[in-house]
Amino acid sequence: MTRSDGGTDTLPSTALLTDHYELTMLRAALADGTAHHQAVFEAFARRLPAGRRYGVVAGLGRLVEAIQAFRFTDAQVAWLEEQGIADARTAAYLRDYRFTGQVDAYREGEICFPGSPVLTVTGTFAECVVLETLVLSVLNHDSAVASAAARMVTAARGRTLLEMGSRRTGEASAVAAARAAYVAGFDATSNLEAGFRYGVPTRGTAAHAFTLAHTDERAAFASQVAALGTGTTLLVDTYDTATGIENAVAVAGPALGAVRIDSGDLAAEARAARARLDALGATSTRIAVTSDLDEHTIDALADVPVDVYGAGTRLVGGSGHPTAGMVYKLVAVADRPGADAPLRPVAKTAAGKASTGGRKTAHRELDARGRAVRETVVVGPATDVPGRALQVAVIRDGHVVHAPTLDEVRAHHRGAKAELLPADLDLADGSPRLVAAAAADLAGSAA
Amino acid sequence: MTRSDGGTDTLPSTALLTDHYELTMLRAALADGTAHHQAVFEAFARRLPAGRRYGVVAGLGRLVEAIQAFRFTDAQVAWLEEQGIADARTAAYLRDYRFTGQVDAYREGEICFPGSPVLTVTGTFAECVVLETLVLSVLNHDSAVASAAARMVTAARGRTLLEMGSRRTGEASAVAAARAAYVAGFDATSNLEAGFRYGVPTRGTAAHAFTLAHTDERAAFASQVAALGTGTTLLVDTYDTATGIENAVAVAGPALGAVRIDSGDLAAEARAARARLDALGATSTRIAVTSDLDEHTIDALADVPVDVYGAGTRLVGGSGHPTAGMVYKLVAVADRPGADAPLRPVAKTAAGKASTGGRKTAHRELDARGRAVRETVVVGPATDVPGRALQVAVIRDGHVVHAPTLDEVRAHHRGAKAELLPADLDLADGSPRLVAAAAADLAGSAA
Repeated sequence: MTRSDGGTDTLPSTALLTDHYELTMLRAALADGTAHHQAVFEAFARRLPAGRRYGVVAGLGRLVEAIQAFRFTDAQVAWLEEQGIADARTAAYLRDYRFTGQVDAYREGEICFPGSPVLTVTGTFAECVVLETLVLSVLNHDSAVASAAARMVTAARGRTLLEMGSRRTGEASAVAAARAAYVAGFDATSNLEAGFRYGVPTRGTAAHAFTLAHTDERAAFASQVAALGTGTTLLVDTYDTATGIENAVAVAGPALGAVRIDSGDLAAEARAARARLDALGATSTRIAVTSDLDEHTIDALADVPVDVYGAGTRLVGGSGHPTAGMVYKLVAVADRPGADAPLRPVAKTAAGKASTGGRKTAHRELDARGRAVRETVVVGPATDVPGRALQVAVIRDGHVVHAPTLDEVRAHHRGAKAELLPADLDLADGSPRLVAAAAADLAGSAA
Repeated sequence: MTRSDGGTDTLPSTALLTDHYELTMLRAALADGTAHHQAVFEAFARRLPAGRRYGVVAGLGRLVEAIQAFRFTDAQVAWLEEQGIADARTAAYLRDYRFTGQVDAYREGEICFPGSPVLTVTGTFAECVVLETLVLSVLNHDSAVASAAARMVTAARGRTLLEMGSRRTGEASAVAAARAAYVAGFDATSNLEAGFRYGVPTRGTAAHAFTLAHTDERAAFASQVAALGTGTTLLVDTYDTATGIENAVAVAGPALGAVRIDSGDLAAEARAARARLDALGATSTRIAVTSDLDEHTIDALADVPVDVYGAGTRLVGGSGHPTAGMVYKLVAVADRPGADAPLRPVAKTAAGKASTGGRKTAHRELDARGRAVRETVVVGPATDVPGRALQVAVIRDGHVVHAPTLDEVRAHHRGAKAELLPADLDLADGSPRLVAAAAADLAGSAA
């Protein structure tokens, strides 16, 4: 599974997707012995983005794969030595590095709240500390997109949602964003790599360039219908939308699949389009709208005859919150080497960034109707806490033990979201009804 | 240079970093012959993000490499056929695809304005249309980060700036962001892959976890100084900043390189830290501050004794504008195959998204003191337009002819930014003084 270049069959080495300070900490910790002390790190968000009532965890599947590919190549280690970042001892450690510890996590697609211990990494201080940046880059990005996507899914009220934001984010983030949106309930993506790599359904037909490349709109439509069938979606707003719809139905007939509108007042355009299509007998032709949509603009179109929404810029930017704000913190550490050494709970006390020490266990308590009423987080193991256990074993002794399919992840998300109340799903700015951090007062025994 | 898997020596295949519709357009265009007509596409932003007075073009070097790696593997083509996206003719075209056309562009690091024709791609309709998403993903992301970074560089007034945002963006975007920030004048990054791949200087010392992993702060500091020398930066706010500074100087002596503060009221903390350090004789010890800094918070610290700023979340999110808003539009196309076929200027006329047809040529006119006074864009070739030609030949017949080093890119950016007026560099919300789009009224002959 691991290639000579440090990566896996599907992923090149991820080992340098790491902040410099992780390796200087490693270097000092190897020198003083702390490197070999058992440690527990947790990823969590102190708060949700302003106005958000809940978050969605995403990226776990990608992270697990990235941790498997966290192997240093000879060239990488040589460079670290040349740069004076790694000394000989650190270089030797990195050459042999592979994560052999434990990862526990909220399932991908799970709902999360402030303080939810989304990911717990246990192992030696050395093997855990070097994963900080990779863990956070993946979880923060994918969770930000999934959290925005979940709100758009609510706003769409069952209408079809397409992710189309690849051009508005980094080319690799685009693939991850398509996957995260699908986790949160989007129906498909425009991104082909997300289809190829993750099996996300892909969709697409034509851009304005295709119409412009032909001498007139009807010629473009005729070519598209000839190649893709009458079930295709014709983009009708290159010149004049009313004429575009007439041309579309004239060319494809009333069985035309859909028309797409990408400009103007979308509500007015969609209503006019519906009336025109119906008048032309194209009563089953669907209407797709695209153009900087987010949960609020989608919500505002609820009473408009739109069938398909394409969301891009705002979606991949997390609807104004491009990061989920998670941090990766040491919460317990031993003071001597060995698996049996007792763990000392630790926490930073700096202003505004204080956190609770000790390894957390989280449950979501549900009422008789299956609705979430409490996020209970206790320090240490928790055996008699009511509710659904939120953490699952993901990696044991370096081996992946939790690898759901993307459709299983989607299903888990649907179920977890169904535990929320209408007030949680309200798109207006609000505060989370459940807060895991506060429940740390329930703390039991130290980790 | 090209590997069997479609990538280059340094990059795997980028061919599926593409929106589905590009391949359905290709399929229809191959069927009707339009695929083989000469075409010109331009990338430009209709407007800058709200409040911005100028933009910075970045990502060109990455894009050139990504275009070279835009080659379809057999597995990719087979998947496209299985999915029904590519028919046999399209599959055959994709198997042999390599870009053989021309790319002209604003130099990386160049200043841009609304309407600036930042990138021009010329070739057959087929070979150009499939690059849309890749072009925009790279340029929009990298330019958004560089545009934010340039404002932070202005705000920092020559003090050291470090990019530390890897954990707040997708793991691959993090590498690109580090590179883009360096282009715009940042001094270094925390991201190791950016150092390894692009030669961006990297920096880092320790996180709170390192202090917490030791039984007391002095033990942690002693270990760090032993490993990294007294020139290192000690993070002093894990418990109490005043005590942290005392411990730092007690351990490292007055030659301590720097202290870092990551929490609290940074202005008050930095002033207090300076006084404490001076009182302890550590008058040359520098003060680094980190914690959600952006151009405005950096600007507000101008009178505070800070030596080093670390910027993360806001920087990699483009300071609230994570995409540069560029589009990739067909501006001219032939109506028959052949290199000699005349090009017809084309433009969408849809509401709010109208653009000017024809291939553009751009110059920046400078006054006697070398300050930018006009962005002149004409349709067609321009030989007697005053000012600095903004476009350079980047790819000719598929071969890269412009490959500056990253330091040359940085130097170009410095020079171009020096042509701006103080009003352009004002961090307050404003409008661009120069607008390339408006100058299209100067249009000469059609392309």
